[in-house]
Amino acid sequence: MKRVLIAIGGNALYDKDQGNNLELHLLREVCFHIAHVVKRGYLPIITFGNGPQVGNLLAMAEKSADLFPSPIPLDTCVSWTQGEIGYWLANEIYTQLINIGLDYHVVAINTTVEVSPEDPAFQKPSKPVGRFLTQSEAQELYEDRGYIVTQDAGRGYRRLVPSPKPLKILEERAIQKLVEQNIITLCCGGGGVPVFWSDEGVKGIEAVIDKDYTSCLLAKNLQIENLIICTEVDYVYLNYGTSQEKALGQMTLAEAERYLAEGQFSEGSMGPKVAALIDYLKSGGKRALITSIPQMSEALDGNVGTAISCSL
Amino acid sequence: MKRVLIAIGGNALYDKDQGNNLELHLLREVCFHIAHVVKRGYLPIITFGNGPQVGNLLAMAEKSADLFPSPIPLDTCVSWTQGEIGYWLANEIYTQLINIGLDYHVVAINTTVEVSPEDPAFQKPSKPVGRFLTQSEAQELYEDRGYIVTQDAGRGYRRLVPSPKPLKILEERAIQKLVEQNIITLCCGGGGVPVFWSDEGVKGIEAVIDKDYTSCLLAKNLQIENLIICTEVDYVYLNYGTSQEKALGQMTLAEAERYLAEGQFSEGSMGPKVAALIDYLKSGGKRALITSIPQMSEALDGNVGTAISCSL
Repeated sequence: MKRVLIAIGGNALYDKDQGNNLELHLLREVCFHIAHVVKRGYLPIITFGNGPQVGNLLAMAEKSADLFPSPIPLDTCVSWTQGEIGYWLANEIYTQLINIGLDYHVVAINTTVEVSPEDPAFQKPSKPVGRFLTQSEAQELYEDRGYIVTQDAGRGYRRLVPSPKPLKILEERAIQKLVEQNIITLCCGGGGVPVFWSDEGVKGIEAVIDKDYTSCLLAKNLQIENLIICTEVDYVYLNYGTSQEKALGQMTLAEAERYLAEGQFSEGSMGPKVAALIDYLKSGGKRALITSIPQMSEALDGNVGTAISCSL
Repeated sequence: MKRVLIAIGGNALYDKDQGNNLELHLLREVCFHIAHVVKRGYLPIITFGNGPQVGNLLAMAEKSADLFPSPIPLDTCVSWTQGEIGYWLANEIYTQLINIGLDYHVVAINTTVEVSPEDPAFQKPSKPVGRFLTQSEAQELYEDRGYIVTQDAGRGYRRLVPSPKPLKILEERAIQKLVEQNIITLCCGGGGVPVFWSDEGVKGIEAVIDKDYTSCLLAKNLQIENLIICTEVDYVYLNYGTSQEKALGQMTLAEAERYLAEGQFSEGSMGPKVAALIDYLKSGGKRALITSIPQMSEALDGNVGTAISCSL
């Protein structure tokens, strides 16, 4: 089977007006489209984000702080979301496959990713996690636990954690063996739980990994021919949000690098996706796509979405 | 490699005087002994319970009820514990293996287990979950959510959920493929998340599965030659706790059945373990052992623990 890695954002499963970690109708929609990718003859390898979910679980841990003698570490929260999101996605993928008469094995595996404690990201925490804090709460967490906090204009303060680059997916060989068996594999939840090798062995670290970077690393190492990063829009745009806005059906690697350098893609959103895909293509990746969840099949067929390729 | 399924109780990783979901020194001890089983030339497949952990997470969910519009379902709580316990055990197994110069892949996978909604257990919820309740709390949960509650002499009330028999491990083929690659696989956490096929597809159900039964089902279907159910004591005893107490080094299947029928083994503890192993042996299982965690290697060597076999 042709293979495709599909990276789904945690936001695609979350409705902030509802507030549950996962909404069944959103899970259904995502998995409906994944099932149709299978119907087109592709074996999907599915990675997923966990931003809103880990935020909720951190809030939950905080509310229940008196139940536990020690604060719940961030790696534990990420591992919870891997269990939860993997379980719910697997159920719905089974269901949607059966609905269209397909029978595949589906498995969700915990994923742990080695990072370097020397990664410059540890000098410059950049990723906001958890709820908004008041100034005094922020001050307290800074003093008591050494948390780095930042002010978010008008909305209060938030904790920032480092976002180091993924170096090695510890479960990579397992994922490879499952994929070779045509088992639909869910992995790299939340970018993977970041760990490093310390004198005491493998240890979790208070950080989060960008799931798109981990997805690109996995696609590269497993030589997966197609990679789709799903986002809220069908295309990558130039001059996004202006009267000069232009959807891009294709970009060469050189163009993508130039547009990225010019600041065409927003830093917290499209920018890192394009950057991760550039990295993937430069390391031998074949076909990199950015599109929305409903368009993933059409994007694979070349009809919709933005394709980045080494040459046109 | 020879293979051994090792079933670890959630209590082995929990210290009620501390109260954290997992205690690092306990994880270390368990994984030290697992690493030494590998050193003896066995590939372990590790299953684990989650009783105290799921109790804590249910309490946490309850304390944070106002964060979410709907109550957190039990299947989500079990999936959280699969993520958490799998992650922490995998880290420590890596560490303990490296400490003795061994290099293996270790992977923790989510496990979902099909049960029948017709299982008689649904007519008779028997497994206490979550914290102790006051009479008025118990009454409220009974009225609002239809929870079945029971009085626990002197300690208050608790919710009871059904404990149906596991019928099918949905990830069985994936586990088999990983085991064939000599990958150390952690699975069947908390006995697996119970699901059933409804008109709407795969759905979780408010129940918990006995992890020893799921372990026996896995060992049977994967034809794993050795199965150890770990417990707090080195041996199964006759007349336990009396002056006639006698440790059993060996039992035939027929003896095990007879002792079980005589009520020699306590209902909430040793009884179901012996019953699960009887089931395993009757379905073609080879070697069934019950012992403590520190003795797992010695038990495999035949020096300690209680072995149940089809004939002596």
